[in-house]
Amino acid sequence: MADIFEQSLIKHKQWKGKITTKLKSPLKTTHDLALAYSPGVAQPCREIAQDKSKVYDYTWKQTTVAVITDGTAVLGLGDIGPEAALPVMEGKCALFKSFGNVDAIPICLDTKDTQEIIAICKALAPSFGGFNLEDIAAPKCVEIERTLKRELDIPIFHDDQHGTAIVVIAGLINALKLVDKKPEDLKVVVSGVGAAGSSIIYMLRDFGVKRIYGFKRSGTINKQDKESYDFLAQELCELVNPDNSRKTMAEELVGADVFIGVSVGNIVSQEMIASMNDKAIVFALANPDPEISYDDALKANAYVVGTGRSDFPNQVNNVLAFPGLFKGALACRAGAITEAMKMAAARGIASLIDENDLRPDYVIPSPFDPKVADVVAQAVIDEATKSNISNKKD
Amino acid sequence: MADIFEQSLIKHKQWKGKITTKLKSPLKTTHDLALAYSPGVAQPCREIAQDKSKVYDYTWKQTTVAVITDGTAVLGLGDIGPEAALPVMEGKCALFKSFGNVDAIPICLDTKDTQEIIAICKALAPSFGGFNLEDIAAPKCVEIERTLKRELDIPIFHDDQHGTAIVVIAGLINALKLVDKKPEDLKVVVSGVGAAGSSIIYMLRDFGVKRIYGFKRSGTINKQDKESYDFLAQELCELVNPDNSRKTMAEELVGADVFIGVSVGNIVSQEMIASMNDKAIVFALANPDPEISYDDALKANAYVVGTGRSDFPNQVNNVLAFPGLFKGALACRAGAITEAMKMAAARGIASLIDENDLRPDYVIPSPFDPKVADVVAQAVIDEATKSNISNKKD
Repeated sequence: MADIFEQSLIKHKQWKGKITTKLKSPLKTTHDLALAYSPGVAQPCREIAQDKSKVYDYTWKQTTVAVITDGTAVLGLGDIGPEAALPVMEGKCALFKSFGNVDAIPICLDTKDTQEIIAICKALAPSFGGFNLEDIAAPKCVEIERTLKRELDIPIFHDDQHGTAIVVIAGLINALKLVDKKPEDLKVVVSGVGAAGSSIIYMLRDFGVKRIYGFKRSGTINKQDKESYDFLAQELCELVNPDNSRKTMAEELVGADVFIGVSVGNIVSQEMIASMNDKAIVFALANPDPEISYDDALKANAYVVGTGRSDFPNQVNNVLAFPGLFKGALACRAGAITEAMKMAAARGIASLIDENDLRPDYVIPSPFDPKVADVVAQAVIDEATKSNISNKKD
Repeated sequence: MADIFEQSLIKHKQWKGKITTKLKSPLKTTHDLALAYSPGVAQPCREIAQDKSKVYDYTWKQTTVAVITDGTAVLGLGDIGPEAALPVMEGKCALFKSFGNVDAIPICLDTKDTQEIIAICKALAPSFGGFNLEDIAAPKCVEIERTLKRELDIPIFHDDQHGTAIVVIAGLINALKLVDKKPEDLKVVVSGVGAAGSSIIYMLRDFGVKRIYGFKRSGTINKQDKESYDFLAQELCELVNPDNSRKTMAEELVGADVFIGVSVGNIVSQEMIASMNDKAIVFALANPDPEISYDDALKANAYVVGTGRSDFPNQVNNVLAFPGLFKGALACRAGAITEAMKMAAARGIASLIDENDLRPDYVIPSPFDPKVADVVAQAVIDEATKSNISNKKD
């Protein structure tokens, strides 16, 4: 693992970019040029000028998303700037293509100003069928996402928030089958209430969980301290901590059924896991070091354990969600990505493992399962169609 | 020709976009993912964070340009908006790929505000190795181009201005060999002093032409009327009309050696061409109807005639210039596209026709000549290296 970094550097130098463009229209003859470019191209232009929605019929907008960042929260590296963020965004675009056959374009913006990012995204909207926001620092990422969702009619998705949440819920759906518990009976502790943590809490609520406890670095989220929180945590006050307790995380984990960590490594001990309810479910997703290691969690008697790492079972990997989610949203020309579509994606991912094949170390499918993107896409299309989010006319 | 529009529409519907993305890095295994994405990708990120210039070593920036428009001057269709401009920009990107193996991405901006367009382009700069500005209304296109050239360190090129100019000068270089005249002895009349016309006049000046007459719709450009012109035409006052005459175009064409039209169709009569000097050179580039038709110009005794149309000889086609120009600029990591690089591109295009093969109906090579882009690219690289515009370190 030590030299994966050196290997990667050498490969990046050789690749000269991880994605490239490719023609879908031939350009070998004067006639080809007349069809794809001047003068023939004037006709699709005129049709779209008459009816903007036809841009989906005649252009790449129907297959293409932009992966947009300002480089302020890249991987675990922090605010490294737009140029240094480009290798990650290109990688994301490569994943979109490889796993979902979605065309994705990396856009690294040389501004950190929330309003300017919003204005630029709005100006870029004609060219793209959707936006995947990526590695933008919290809480401004949420403000950007919400504003764009309100003001644009293309799908907007902030993967750092919702990608992890979708896969966590997928894993939880399958884990609950194994432990034979119901959402409404669960006590769930979530460590980390930033971008990912808050989205997880919203999805847990929609999934039917009543008792959710959210922890910041400073302690449990509770109404008494609301004034001191950022707007994300303030909103969560209404959803978490039903008894308005002020327990520590160690205290709150006693009798909990589920722990979900999207915070920092090595903050949960074996004793804390051992104090949880029978058949505890632990998703410790901090990277590269989880809140508690896979092995330690099992030793402490957790029943289902997942991490963010590819070298352990039950990897919570966003790539299970975003390629299929956008593939489906583009296919049905969804005007947005809704909470219901995210939940449909989670159920789609969970459904990839047959109930007979479920095991504690296999509640989340492999990202290399070739069926993932299509199953997720179809679940998203079905939900969008049902709820009239689809704009596809055939 | 009548149904090229209907054919094009059908093809656009089938193509579902004229370009797509393609992987350059494999993503088949967990190890592939670890190299191209997390965790390995952190290493090129860290390198670039330390030294921004390394973004060229590890990302697609070294091969990729953005084709940017606001949809205000698309083909001959005018201000049709960013969505309706997308088929043209995609077509341009397909030409970049097909003719120059340059990756190009269509960006259609939903704003017409000059300052906002400039700000957006600046914010987009980290992701791209250059900008090709396209179909932005004059004169704001010039203001946008100049500001970006001043404030960014990547090549900026407004094809509507300079693409045509480069190919016209290439054709002129070859035509002068046939008629055995020198630039300094020529009298040249240019009809149209917008984006293309003004760039042509600047290149004619650099090429050594002393007597240039530029015509607006209202008549000849002259110092007396300077105050009434837009800034583009005001600047040209210093370069054109050395005797400060107020002749009509018909009067000024008497004894002229060269006519270059980038204006509107059917404004030049056979009589006007017949009044020109011996062995007159006529580039009548208005599309689809030239200032005077190819056949009429020949009948009126013009010696070399070029148009913008693919169905006649000597087509002045931008595709001869921009793919090779950017291919060269990207290859040598040029920080800009200079006047000297444009002139080098023109000489490169001209050089593609061997002197023994030159004929009045063959002064401009075919865009399908497979050598074009490489010859232009090499000419550009040589000039950039000579003048220290290149940033390539090997």
